[in-house]
Amino acid sequence: MDEEYASIVLENAVRELSRLPGVGRKTALRLALHILRRDESEGVALGEAIINLRKNIRYCKVCHNISESEVCAVCGSPVRDHRTVCVVENVRDVMSIENTGQYQGMYHVLGGVISPMDGIGPDQLEIESLVKRVADEGITEVILALASTMEGDTTNFYIYRKLGVFDSLKITQLARGMAVGNEIEYTDELTLGRSLLQRTLFSESFK
Amino acid sequence: MDEEYASIVLENAVRELSRLPGVGRKTALRLALHILRRDESEGVALGEAIINLRKNIRYCKVCHNISESEVCAVCGSPVRDHRTVCVVENVRDVMSIENTGQYQGMYHVLGGVISPMDGIGPDQLEIESLVKRVADEGITEVILALASTMEGDTTNFYIYRKLGVFDSLKITQLARGMAVGNEIEYTDELTLGRSLLQRTLFSESFK
Repeated sequence: MDEEYASIVLENAVRELSRLPGVGRKTALRLALHILRRDESEGVALGEAIINLRKNIRYCKVCHNISESEVCAVCGSPVRDHRTVCVVENVRDVMSIENTGQYQGMYHVLGGVISPMDGIGPDQLEIESLVKRVADEGITEVILALASTMEGDTTNFYIYRKLGVFDSLKITQLARGMAVGNEIEYTDELTLGRSLLQRTLFSESFK
Repeated sequence: MDEEYASIVLENAVRELSRLPGVGRKTALRLALHILRRDESEGVALGEAIINLRKNIRYCKVCHNISESEVCAVCGSPVRDHRTVCVVENVRDVMSIENTGQYQGMYHVLGGVISPMDGIGPDQLEIESLVKRVADEGITEVILALASTMEGDTTNFYIYRKLGVFDSLKITQLARGMAVGNEIEYTDELTLGRSLLQRTLFSESFK
């Protein structure tokens, strides 16, 4: 639309929406027109939810997970196991693990993985603070729960070396193997090989 | 994330974002975390732009295009041609035509096309108000600029019949033919046939 006849309010909304990842100008315009078609209350609720989100969410000073207070609900929980720390790349991984319902310990969010290609070194990640937590908080087990990629493995190994100074600390990592529901025929060779090498007692699966 | 450990503020933002078209819960979460990673000012600007959009945009009472005032900038323009009205389906079509820079007349936004399959009849569209405009505003030409689909053609024909009562009114439609830049070989038969039947004088293209 010509500058002269364009709506500045619409133009502004389209510009802000198109800053979102994966949203180009065409999609932003489609979103804006959708918001216009719906009830005023719905559009206002969306806008307010975004402002609220940005103003009221901060990062837990202990584990760096998102939080509404200085210390997050997990770190502040009196019923969870404070001696086990699960190291993850980002807050989405925390949510994925929470969704399994299988974990009752603490977290430590690194904020990324070591990736020289992207210029991310150990200093940009929350590794020093992890070492400090292990030294100070009486942690007995660190679970390395990073992606099964070269960067994830590198980071796992770096942390493993850093934590080597703590003699009695147990350092574990997520099991690598066949995904539940997968067929042998369609499992890649590396994974299948790992599954064979790290086979577990069948009787363990009934427990 | 378990209810107990989830952030209500985040949950709220994800729920509102996932109401947007094409945005599921996973995408909404990705957008919310993106907003969290950026500057606070950026997130607040997005939220405010959306609230502003919904509160300050209304529809022009003459042409039903979006507007920041009772009458839109096009309808209120003293330099544009008020005797030609281009009939379009929605506000995006207005923007597309404005972007060509080839049109200086008025618009009339129908708000859809006749589509019995979707339960949209002529009464739900701004057709009566178009007839009234033609009767009252001294309009000399109506350009039918609807999609080249069955629904678009049906609506074109319906409007054509409705406006048949105005003797001196010129009713035109967008030219149908080969898209600029297309090759003969890849143009569909229907379009190619139309292009042949409605061929234009070569000398006209220099004008």
